[in-house]
Amino acid sequence: MAADIAEQPEVYARLLDVQAPAIAEVAARIAGWAPRHVIFTARGTSDHAALYAAYLTEIRLGIPAGLASPSAYTVYGARPDLRDALVVGVSQSGGSPDLCEVVRVAREQGAHTLAVTNNPSSPLAGAAELSIDIAAGHERAVAATKTYSAELLALLMLVEGVRAGDGALPAEERAALAELPALAQALTDDPTPGELAPRYRFAARMVTTGRGYAYPTARETALKLMETSYLPALAFSGADLLHGPLAMADPDVPVLAVVGSGPGGAAMREVLARLDERRADVVAIGPSDVAGAALRIPTPDVDERYAPLLDILPLQRLALELARHRGENPDAPRGLKKVTTTL
Amino acid sequence: MAADIAEQPEVYARLLDVQAPAIAEVAARIAGWAPRHVIFTARGTSDHAALYAAYLTEIRLGIPAGLASPSAYTVYGARPDLRDALVVGVSQSGGSPDLCEVVRVAREQGAHTLAVTNNPSSPLAGAAELSIDIAAGHERAVAATKTYSAELLALLMLVEGVRAGDGALPAEERAALAELPALAQALTDDPTPGELAPRYRFAARMVTTGRGYAYPTARETALKLMETSYLPALAFSGADLLHGPLAMADPDVPVLAVVGSGPGGAAMREVLARLDERRADVVAIGPSDVAGAALRIPTPDVDERYAPLLDILPLQRLALELARHRGENPDAPRGLKKVTTTL
Repeated sequence: MAADIAEQPEVYARLLDVQAPAIAEVAARIAGWAPRHVIFTARGTSDHAALYAAYLTEIRLGIPAGLASPSAYTVYGARPDLRDALVVGVSQSGGSPDLCEVVRVAREQGAHTLAVTNNPSSPLAGAAELSIDIAAGHERAVAATKTYSAELLALLMLVEGVRAGDGALPAEERAALAELPALAQALTDDPTPGELAPRYRFAARMVTTGRGYAYPTARETALKLMETSYLPALAFSGADLLHGPLAMADPDVPVLAVVGSGPGGAAMREVLARLDERRADVVAIGPSDVAGAALRIPTPDVDERYAPLLDILPLQRLALELARHRGENPDAPRGLKKVTTTL
Repeated sequence: MAADIAEQPEVYARLLDVQAPAIAEVAARIAGWAPRHVIFTARGTSDHAALYAAYLTEIRLGIPAGLASPSAYTVYGARPDLRDALVVGVSQSGGSPDLCEVVRVAREQGAHTLAVTNNPSSPLAGAAELSIDIAAGHERAVAATKTYSAELLALLMLVEGVRAGDGALPAEERAALAELPALAQALTDDPTPGELAPRYRFAARMVTTGRGYAYPTARETALKLMETSYLPALAFSGADLLHGPLAMADPDVPVLAVVGSGPGGAAMREVLARLDERRADVVAIGPSDVAGAALRIPTPDVDERYAPLLDILPLQRLALELARHRGENPDAPRGLKKVTTTL
């Protein structure tokens, strides 16, 4: 898992340098189709990448987007009319039978389809009309790390390529993305996650939160903590936290709050104030100190649209280091296999 | 909260007898519009009712449906092209500014809009083109119970009315729904939740799970447990549980598994087997004993489409009784207000 995590700067560089033309080609095709709405389908870690892509699709493309529940199709036989839709399956293995079935049904129902996977010869890539290879290389650990960040960047490049129309990223976008590998490398070398991990050695549970683009980061962090440290970790959008789960917060529930420097971070201010009232133990992940958070995991000050590609990196390391402190083996989470096959 | 819970059979009867014509009228209008996709927007408990309605929309109407993230609109200013869409805001109070803003923007962007609320003179009902009054009466407790079940039934009646075309429910559907108040009353009188509650007096956390139609029940149960007993409760679709969180399961993590008698329940079999391998403590909610579950909260054997309207009733009572056993006051959850206003 440590080796997978360390490879992420290189994975970003490979996507930007080697995979960019193939992604641009797919983006140009999709721009030509001009879908009226986009449906993402994914499970586990990839579901969080899909959530990020759904925000991007709505905000950057002005196309309504949502996440499909595979079970509507696979368990109850839903056959919606999808003639205006693009259906995107996201899966590192490309091997999950339920996602393949959703994509197969979607094609039958008139949708255009796309697979985003780390295995271009997978059943999911075969089932979809188009596919994107995230080219993250073999992922050794059961807990997905580099395939998650690679999915995020591939989906960002895809959306920005569709926005450009011809698939090619505008110079400004290319320049911003070109900084990612170095920023990711700096985070990979930062000692903060390792220093912070012992603080949670005896935590019985954890809450993660963020709004907008930061919400997928909160969800993925919670999943990593569950997979590697067996710590019940609850992820909430900042807004949903105020609708009920806030009652659970007290000084014994550590909170990891992802707080960017843009509108999503600003929208977290009220959430942090309410957590402070409940004397919650808040650590902020972001570029600057925020009221209500005693400690911080520093991340670069970038547009919130790019922040998910960076903020997750120290959080993956926090999960890894915490598992070690708790005497667990992050490379062999109990009860899990690398490819999960649900119908 | 106990009084709100006890009123649910009556709330069902009122929706079926008094509100049915108004819901049928809205259903006929929507059938006439023939939306190409449906977007639900909601927070907290109402989000779980919206999730149920999204399943219904896909499975019963063959129209793709999803849940919108309000923050894409309210925080990042997304302005998607919604000319083919129906946007449905679900909120007991109808007072949440972010939902009102989503509905307002959706109208501007060309969508048809509908509000489903317990307050027909609320800002949300005013913002939408059409509205449905769930007529649950004043809800006294902060933790929503009767407004949740009323939202479920109103949305079911709406979807089945749209399916019928003219809004009027087919005789067969009317007959099935007419049994709900009596079935709900029998559940309200069942002693099982009160008998089971002490078992969780010292639980440090809890997991709830279900697939398909039962997944909203799992989510809503987790929220009730967090709101009233401050118990970190993690809800997973059965499929997502296998994608990572399963590692967290052990004999100290109690699991509430909603297992119906249809395809969703059948799809839980593998999940229960894997939980059994991890020696998890599983209580099943459903009409029959299932392998891997030591105990059961019995619910009537109905089509899985109707089960969410019944399965939640003993689970609300379990949350209430557990709060009492833990010395908490379920009528005054710490840190919460009845109307949550997020932007």
